[in-house]
Amino acid sequence: MMNKVEVCFSPQLFDLFDTENSIVVVVDIFRATSAMVTAFQHGAKSFIPVSTIKEAKEWKEKGFLAAGERNGEVVKGFEFGNSPFSYQSDAINGREIVLTTTNGTRAINIAKKNADTVLIGAFLNLQALANHLKNQGKDVVIFCAGWKDRFNMEDSLFAGALTMLLLTSGKFESSCDSANASSLVYRTARKDLLRFLANCSHRKRLAHLNLEKDVEYCLQTDTTDVIPVLRNDKLVLLG
Amino acid sequence: MMNKVEVCFSPQLFDLFDTENSIVVVVDIFRATSAMVTAFQHGAKSFIPVSTIKEAKEWKEKGFLAAGERNGEVVKGFEFGNSPFSYQSDAINGREIVLTTTNGTRAINIAKKNADTVLIGAFLNLQALANHLKNQGKDVVIFCAGWKDRFNMEDSLFAGALTMLLLTSGKFESSCDSANASSLVYRTARKDLLRFLANCSHRKRLAHLNLEKDVEYCLQTDTTDVIPVLRNDKLVLLG
Repeated sequence: MMNKVEVCFSPQLFDLFDTENSIVVVVDIFRATSAMVTAFQHGAKSFIPVSTIKEAKEWKEKGFLAAGERNGEVVKGFEFGNSPFSYQSDAINGREIVLTTTNGTRAINIAKKNADTVLIGAFLNLQALANHLKNQGKDVVIFCAGWKDRFNMEDSLFAGALTMLLLTSGKFESSCDSANASSLVYRTARKDLLRFLANCSHRKRLAHLNLEKDVEYCLQTDTTDVIPVLRNDKLVLLG
Repeated sequence: MMNKVEVCFSPQLFDLFDTENSIVVVVDIFRATSAMVTAFQHGAKSFIPVSTIKEAKEWKEKGFLAAGERNGEVVKGFEFGNSPFSYQSDAINGREIVLTTTNGTRAINIAKKNADTVLIGAFLNLQALANHLKNQGKDVVIFCAGWKDRFNMEDSLFAGALTMLLLTSGKFESSCDSANASSLVYRTARKDLLRFLANCSHRKRLAHLNLEKDVEYCLQTDTTDVIPVLRNDKLVLLG
């Protein structure tokens, strides 16, 4: 039997998807899920995704490393923000990190209410994710964190890329218009994602913050095999 | 000064858009807005868009023609459904029609709460709409009715087509990712919309109901100059 792949463009649309028996892949390319994948690649033990700065502070007071980002900037008083480069450090090896971001951690906390399994996706672990999903025999919903509940281009491009890999595996089918539209946009953009995204709203937002290096980093494909998975409200390394 | 064009993919996302001083173009290609445009082209006096079958029945009892569609089928006991062909009739000349559909009329009633002006769009009146909008000096939000709050392909294609026309007029700009994604998908699809939509979810739904002729009709471009506009809770002919 074929499994379904669907794409959700916004946290505000997630309740339309029946995810009880599905694997939900949460994606926030710029930069939360790219940063998390990078952190696991560099030895982080776990992430605790929380929705508010207040919650993150409470964990910080208990001795956890604290990472926080709002509107693209590091939350004052926190060790880390959303930059993947900040997680390429020995300081995070074996550590548990509480994380709150504008879009990504909120999406994770919405997804966990209903989904069978929640995984974290980024271009960095795209092929590894596809390989894993092909062998699960479950439907997949790719959940774009978006920007403040709006559709955004970079998360949709990732959704298109993953949809294409799943469909070509022969184990998935899609009658989901958002999955088909995403794949089409990805096919047009794939040769040069960076250039394609020159006009996208979030890249402009980050350019303003001098984060072009982060943008380039997050658009690299298949640099790692790590897949973060949510277990008991913590993201840990799968397998 | 340039005006903005934005695209909203779902009624469930409409609250994210600031439409107080904007013109909102509601689109439900298969088939509500295509049917309305056709009706005005054939002499209808007005449409009263209502969200529920119960409301439509109340108007019907007052002597209005009643049109109702749910899940692609005519509501039992109503004169008309959503098929544009049923409005190509002398019977509607000068008449007021109460209308309730699965997606389109709901979108109209959501839009009217905040928008400066609500217009009705379809491929049938695409160029006429673009010509009108170019001369208003107002921001535009293209509001896709979708299918039960989900993204759908045909409404997004229309959004892409109208976005392209507005951007090429030199009077509009867009930093809206959904507008840019829609335009891109439309550019790929425009040569043969019918074929492109072969796999879209709603066309499949209509094929099942033997409505292929309606689908072909609704994908014709620029067959009329009529533009319906909402005034005092009724859709009437603009100008």
